[in-house]
Amino acid sequence: MPGTYAGCILRVNLTEGRIEKERPSEEVLRTYIGGRGLGSYYLWRMMDPTADPFSPENPLIFATGPLTGTPAPTGGRYMVLCKSPLTGLIACSNSGGKFGAELKAAGYDMVVFEGEAREPVYLFIQDDRVELRPAEHLWGLDTHETTDRLLEEIGDERARVACIGPAGENRVRLACVINDKHRAAGRSGVGAVMGAKKLKAIVVRGTRRPEAPDKQVFMDFIRQKLGILEKNPVTGEGLPRLGTKVLDSIINENGLYPTRNFQTGVFDSTHEVSGEALVEKGYLKKNRGCYACPIKCARVTELPTRSKGEGPEYESGWAYGACCGVKDLIAVTEANFLCNRLGLDTISAGVTIACAMELYEKGYLPKEDLGPGPELHFGSSEAILYYTEAMAYRRGLGDKLAEGSLRLARAYGHPELSMSVKGQELPAYDPRGAQGHALGYATSNRGGCHVRAYLISPEILGVPEKLDPQSTEGKAQWVKIFQDLTAVIDSIGLCLFTSFALSVEDYRDLLSAATGFDYTVEEMMTCGERIWNLERLFNLRAGMDPSQDTLPKRMLEEPMPEGPNKGAVVRLSEMLPEYYRVRGWDETGQPTPDKLKALGLA
Amino acid sequence: MPGTYAGCILRVNLTEGRIEKERPSEEVLRTYIGGRGLGSYYLWRMMDPTADPFSPENPLIFATGPLTGTPAPTGGRYMVLCKSPLTGLIACSNSGGKFGAELKAAGYDMVVFEGEAREPVYLFIQDDRVELRPAEHLWGLDTHETTDRLLEEIGDERARVACIGPAGENRVRLACVINDKHRAAGRSGVGAVMGAKKLKAIVVRGTRRPEAPDKQVFMDFIRQKLGILEKNPVTGEGLPRLGTKVLDSIINENGLYPTRNFQTGVFDSTHEVSGEALVEKGYLKKNRGCYACPIKCARVTELPTRSKGEGPEYESGWAYGACCGVKDLIAVTEANFLCNRLGLDTISAGVTIACAMELYEKGYLPKEDLGPGPELHFGSSEAILYYTEAMAYRRGLGDKLAEGSLRLARAYGHPELSMSVKGQELPAYDPRGAQGHALGYATSNRGGCHVRAYLISPEILGVPEKLDPQSTEGKAQWVKIFQDLTAVIDSIGLCLFTSFALSVEDYRDLLSAATGFDYTVEEMMTCGERIWNLERLFNLRAGMDPSQDTLPKRMLEEPMPEGPNKGAVVRLSEMLPEYYRVRGWDETGQPTPDKLKALGLA
Repeated sequence: MPGTYAGCILRVNLTEGRIEKERPSEEVLRTYIGGRGLGSYYLWRMMDPTADPFSPENPLIFATGPLTGTPAPTGGRYMVLCKSPLTGLIACSNSGGKFGAELKAAGYDMVVFEGEAREPVYLFIQDDRVELRPAEHLWGLDTHETTDRLLEEIGDERARVACIGPAGENRVRLACVINDKHRAAGRSGVGAVMGAKKLKAIVVRGTRRPEAPDKQVFMDFIRQKLGILEKNPVTGEGLPRLGTKVLDSIINENGLYPTRNFQTGVFDSTHEVSGEALVEKGYLKKNRGCYACPIKCARVTELPTRSKGEGPEYESGWAYGACCGVKDLIAVTEANFLCNRLGLDTISAGVTIACAMELYEKGYLPKEDLGPGPELHFGSSEAILYYTEAMAYRRGLGDKLAEGSLRLARAYGHPELSMSVKGQELPAYDPRGAQGHALGYATSNRGGCHVRAYLISPEILGVPEKLDPQSTEGKAQWVKIFQDLTAVIDSIGLCLFTSFALSVEDYRDLLSAATGFDYTVEEMMTCGERIWNLERLFNLRAGMDPSQDTLPKRMLEEPMPEGPNKGAVVRLSEMLPEYYRVRGWDETGQPTPDKLKALGLA
Repeated sequence: MPGTYAGCILRVNLTEGRIEKERPSEEVLRTYIGGRGLGSYYLWRMMDPTADPFSPENPLIFATGPLTGTPAPTGGRYMVLCKSPLTGLIACSNSGGKFGAELKAAGYDMVVFEGEAREPVYLFIQDDRVELRPAEHLWGLDTHETTDRLLEEIGDERARVACIGPAGENRVRLACVINDKHRAAGRSGVGAVMGAKKLKAIVVRGTRRPEAPDKQVFMDFIRQKLGILEKNPVTGEGLPRLGTKVLDSIINENGLYPTRNFQTGVFDSTHEVSGEALVEKGYLKKNRGCYACPIKCARVTELPTRSKGEGPEYESGWAYGACCGVKDLIAVTEANFLCNRLGLDTISAGVTIACAMELYEKGYLPKEDLGPGPELHFGSSEAILYYTEAMAYRRGLGDKLAEGSLRLARAYGHPELSMSVKGQELPAYDPRGAQGHALGYATSNRGGCHVRAYLISPEILGVPEKLDPQSTEGKAQWVKIFQDLTAVIDSIGLCLFTSFALSVEDYRDLLSAATGFDYTVEEMMTCGERIWNLERLFNLRAGMDPSQDTLPKRMLEEPMPEGPNKGAVVRLSEMLPEYYRVRGWDETGQPTPDKLKALGLA
């Protein structure tokens, strides 16, 4: 098997309790790389995309990339793939920490779950030893309790755990998978699919380390790329210093920090909840890095309430902060901790609560529906915590919140108040402030998402070059390149943050040296394009209409009320036709037979 | 030794590391009963009242009453006495839980600490075995950590711990002593005196139970009084159902629920933070009782943030709630938990933060003094938590907050904004709404306090009979009787809450049966009057001027702005001269020689 691949895929049939190992073909590996690419390929091959996400027909895949578990900088990523119960489309959620590297060290590129267990189970992996074990005693526990109990149970503290909390068990469509207690494969409700399968956790311990064909060449490249990352102002200074929360002030000053359910892009209390505030108020205790990471952007925090954990990241802090109008950094951080324990995606959970707040304040959500819960006013610290818990347990109004903002807003007759694309909640950049980023939202294969084409980088941060955020010109091409490159990075098993510093050549160097496949930049980028098109095919087959390549009406029709982007709306119609064109798709958004053929997809 | 007394007083000289036992005289016991009375007598005998509260000359006394540790209903109280660093006057703070009963079971009526240790120590008591042990390893720990570590260290989970947290160590003038993790000898800064002595904790285990001279008679009385408590609507239903927080709605509806530092007596968000809300929101998990208590008013709570603890009680919930304008029951409960862990008096801490909020909002406390802390606006959940922690560690503005509201308000040039009497913060009843209760505040020997003469009972609750709260007529006599009876109850070792149901005869029955002293009601009540006058003597000797028998200017001059008491001020001048008269004091507030002679104090 080539280089740093483990060369083994674990197939676990939960219905039958059967575990098998299979060897992936070299051709498939070279064509789909690993991680997101390889997982998508398996998903495509294994399932009918029209299947119900909660049915046994929906596989759940844990995938590593060829660089996962290697000393390559940030080489600790893994992904969870399935059909999303939130969007009904393909889901691929990426996570860091140390679980992914451990899975690779145990000897597996992927674990593919099929079917559905009758009673709760967990998967125990210790190198070659793989067992499904009863998890009745873990059902109902939160992710921290589950992790502690499992490590105690197996008697090996070096093992790594990925699991779901109550939210996943209760099929909350915003449920995530949590590994290493604080890291999340967050988006698209992958945790709910795990819950539907009655799979509580995977605990893994591995003792093998992947080896590159020429260790010397690989290590030389690694040292070189480490140097690049260290010298880069974002990966070498900004992220290590303030973590992702370096962004609060920048994005707010640029007027695209979505506030009170995207009613505006300026939050006048940003200074109270920013990354700087987290440091100055003394809540940040230290930084922490994922496996093999030189950036170490994770925040280890402790609050005056004595709560300890990691976070908030920029997105989480924003979703529960500005988006809910809350300027209380303690409550925001507690909400983040709570999401991690309950197994909820912070972005979707926070934005769904923000949506409920707007529905309540506008009088569409009647007071009696709150039951004994606190009033759902923007700015309420208690509300964000109370309804987060209610959501995870589907208690009272929480049962509606658990369905996500689109189903919630629909239930109250105002779907336009759901700030989502394809049913997935938008992240922390008001698209009216960055046209290219907006196009990225509208065309993302997993719905509202900032890590499929992070155009904020050129449009706001000026990396690799500064683009005018309000110009639509050429943005389609930028979005395509970012989407394809991101698909590559997610497949390799590296963290997207490396892309602030590394070039396509850098990724090619590492990937080729690790696998022994002698990629050119072109071949590698074609892999990215192939993956993107495969995801698109999955979605179309699942029933997605290309008319869903759009944004909430507010983004297209309500001018930004204040700040640097005052008056702006997203001019999607100026970009979308061009995007279809540069993608080689027809004007209705369908990949052309020629394009599919060129990519080996037809 | 008579009856349920242990017959032994432990004297611990911290300077010399010397431990001695002494036998109290029967005459002194009969004259001062125990607890508050006996402790005050020792304090009076042992110290020069002008001594600095933080000097080794200030003794620190842990006192039980004759009924402490017996099966008498609520027989679990103990008191902590010393000269207060907050008021400069006599301090006697009462607590429940199980520590007091354990101390009695170990064979001690009181523990009297003198001097000051050079290095941190704790006192270990296991029946006759008594040792001072090093506590360097406990210094800096909070009260929960200290308790857990001590129980582990001595290897006996049945032992009971009373200790201080960081607030006491740092001589915060609002520091309390915490026992059994959640119970507080809360007021007047007794924890700071313990900290000044470098006494971190007392851990006690006792195996002896006090015995009444005629067990049958005693048990018959106990059964009879239990029946009375069970049938009473307050002790048999109101307090068991909602705990002390049964009061929020009642006091708010009556318009004396002090809001935003006593700027008004109506809080429009009471329904969000009331005892009912605590139940309905699901934060209340169950009730818990102190030693031998049939009322079980303690609240065991758990928040969506996963924090667990006890509380909030009515006073604590109000101090951090309405008084700070906060309607977030999670933050309020977290603040309560935090005070317990840090060892802070919730009333004084909350009211001091409320004072800072008014100073800030009025522009007297400049923004730069906040440092990196959140803005001190009324209603801020983050502010109450942030500044509570800052106070305990004396960080930034916390150093000024740690001095209490009067010193804080003085430092900013506006002492009139401190809602305190004799330097101690007022509790949760706006005195403009109950004239008799107001007189109780003005004349309390320990400054602002509701449990020296709880006139709320007749004036608002109608127990034992309904008095017009806005009438001043006859209130002086009521206050005197309540003050004397409370001194008796505190000395006996029972909980003041029994007085909603029990009569003076009931207390006499229990006290006489327990001790074998054949008290008449008159003799017993004279003990109460004696204790009150002794405390007064201590205060006058300490330098208190009777002009301090007053209230904040706001209470006397600013008419209540709204609600049932709209327009009311406290008409103290209509009551104070009469109070001095019924006390047998001269018109300047000095006890007359005749009165002192009659009480055996001259």
